[in-house]
Amino acid sequence: MPRYVIKLQYDGTRYVGYQVQPNGPSIQGALEAALLKITKQKSDQKIATSCSGRTDSGVHALGQVVHFDLELDLPPVAILNALNALLDKDIRVVAANKVSDQFHARYQVLGKGYRYRIDTGKVLNPFKRFYTTHHPYSYSLTSIQKALEPLLGWHDFTSFCSTKTDKEDKRRTLYKAEVREDNEGQELIFDFYGNGFLYNMIRIIVGTAMQIGDGLKDPSEMQRLLQVKDRNQAGPTAPPQGLYLMHVDYRQDPFEGGAFSED
Amino acid sequence: MPRYVIKLQYDGTRYVGYQVQPNGPSIQGALEAALLKITKQKSDQKIATSCSGRTDSGVHALGQVVHFDLELDLPPVAILNALNALLDKDIRVVAANKVSDQFHARYQVLGKGYRYRIDTGKVLNPFKRFYTTHHPYSYSLTSIQKALEPLLGWHDFTSFCSTKTDKEDKRRTLYKAEVREDNEGQELIFDFYGNGFLYNMIRIIVGTAMQIGDGLKDPSEMQRLLQVKDRNQAGPTAPPQGLYLMHVDYRQDPFEGGAFSED
Repeated sequence: MPRYVIKLQYDGTRYVGYQVQPNGPSIQGALEAALLKITKQKSDQKIATSCSGRTDSGVHALGQVVHFDLELDLPPVAILNALNALLDKDIRVVAANKVSDQFHARYQVLGKGYRYRIDTGKVLNPFKRFYTTHHPYSYSLTSIQKALEPLLGWHDFTSFCSTKTDKEDKRRTLYKAEVREDNEGQELIFDFYGNGFLYNMIRIIVGTAMQIGDGLKDPSEMQRLLQVKDRNQAGPTAPPQGLYLMHVDYRQDPFEGGAFSED
Repeated sequence: MPRYVIKLQYDGTRYVGYQVQPNGPSIQGALEAALLKITKQKSDQKIATSCSGRTDSGVHALGQVVHFDLELDLPPVAILNALNALLDKDIRVVAANKVSDQFHARYQVLGKGYRYRIDTGKVLNPFKRFYTTHHPYSYSLTSIQKALEPLLGWHDFTSFCSTKTDKEDKRRTLYKAEVREDNEGQELIFDFYGNGFLYNMIRIIVGTAMQIGDGLKDPSEMQRLLQVKDRNQAGPTAPPQGLYLMHVDYRQDPFEGGAFSED
């Protein structure tokens, strides 16, 4: 069976998250239902898809990567167009390709980029409520920047991982942890890049960094949290709607030579 | 009873429109329910509000103006804060004031500004689907600009008015009808300013202008449509989600000296 890889953008607002769950619509569920239609299999059958990593309810993606095997042998452009015709408009396939059956969307991830957007406008903007977290208070950008510095490199991120995780090894390498102000957009924008992220890791880092920015904690707190390895001592988990999975990198670009929706 | 005036921003996506209707939630309904709570009246009672002009389902506003009378005498800042605490986050009060009982939000309108946003990106952006209309085809900006020119000034806009209107007099003055490209945002942005607008007027003008931009009709068609006064000969009504009521002007600014949410 040919293996396909696709790149997805989605607005996570109305989904319970990427993964299929009994309590509501999921990105994975929508995708697998569309694939069933394409292959004309009966709905009690199943097409298994694997993503680069789950996203929670309300979290968005600009470059989620998913692979799956189909009995059908189709050109990538046909997969791309058929999926976009079948999926709701809050999920878009922006690239598709055929790959070797050695490719795996999760196991072979080299690095992932995430963004977290905070609306710092004094007034809540009704058009941004699902796409940013609102923080209408004054803060110190320098303190937040200082707080992020010790996170760079290889660390045990236990303090920044939900206790609901099933991962044993909490050591990850963070290559980028930056924050900047986009004053025109009245936003504070965090960008992270790492070789892997734990459950809620970005959201706990942002929640803690914002406490430091607000002066509730000292910037040196981050270093201490890395050492104590205790989730309960870190800050709150920032809300999901500010978080975006931006891109996923592999040793070899799985979309090279593939089909792109902008073509 | 003191008369209050408020300025509203709203995301019209999940509403049946500004006006109360039996088939779903409305901006007016949400506002009047919140006012009832503030005045602690029973829910079978009613507080009457008047807006500058209705907006349809899915249409957005950055500066809708509404007035109402309350038995309560409250400072404007209290009205503003109480409403924002009670309203869902897709409706925000950005200004409030007390006005003379001679003020009327609809009858005294001098001019209104509307914007229409078209996403011209080749690929549908899932984050813009409720906030723009998607038009991924090539078009002529010059043709659209030429098409808008004859609309300026005082005209009978019958061809650009829904037949469902109850207005007899279809003559209005258009002071501004401009279109520009925002290439970074991959958008085509129409801005209109006039002394009053008929039902669906902007959306029919945009629908017709886009047919001209696509080369389906000649730019001279607009002049002809003004003359024939026939809705059926104009283009389609452009979808609601691209339309924004930007601001409403009065002879005297009703918010002067009032309370603003950014204060």
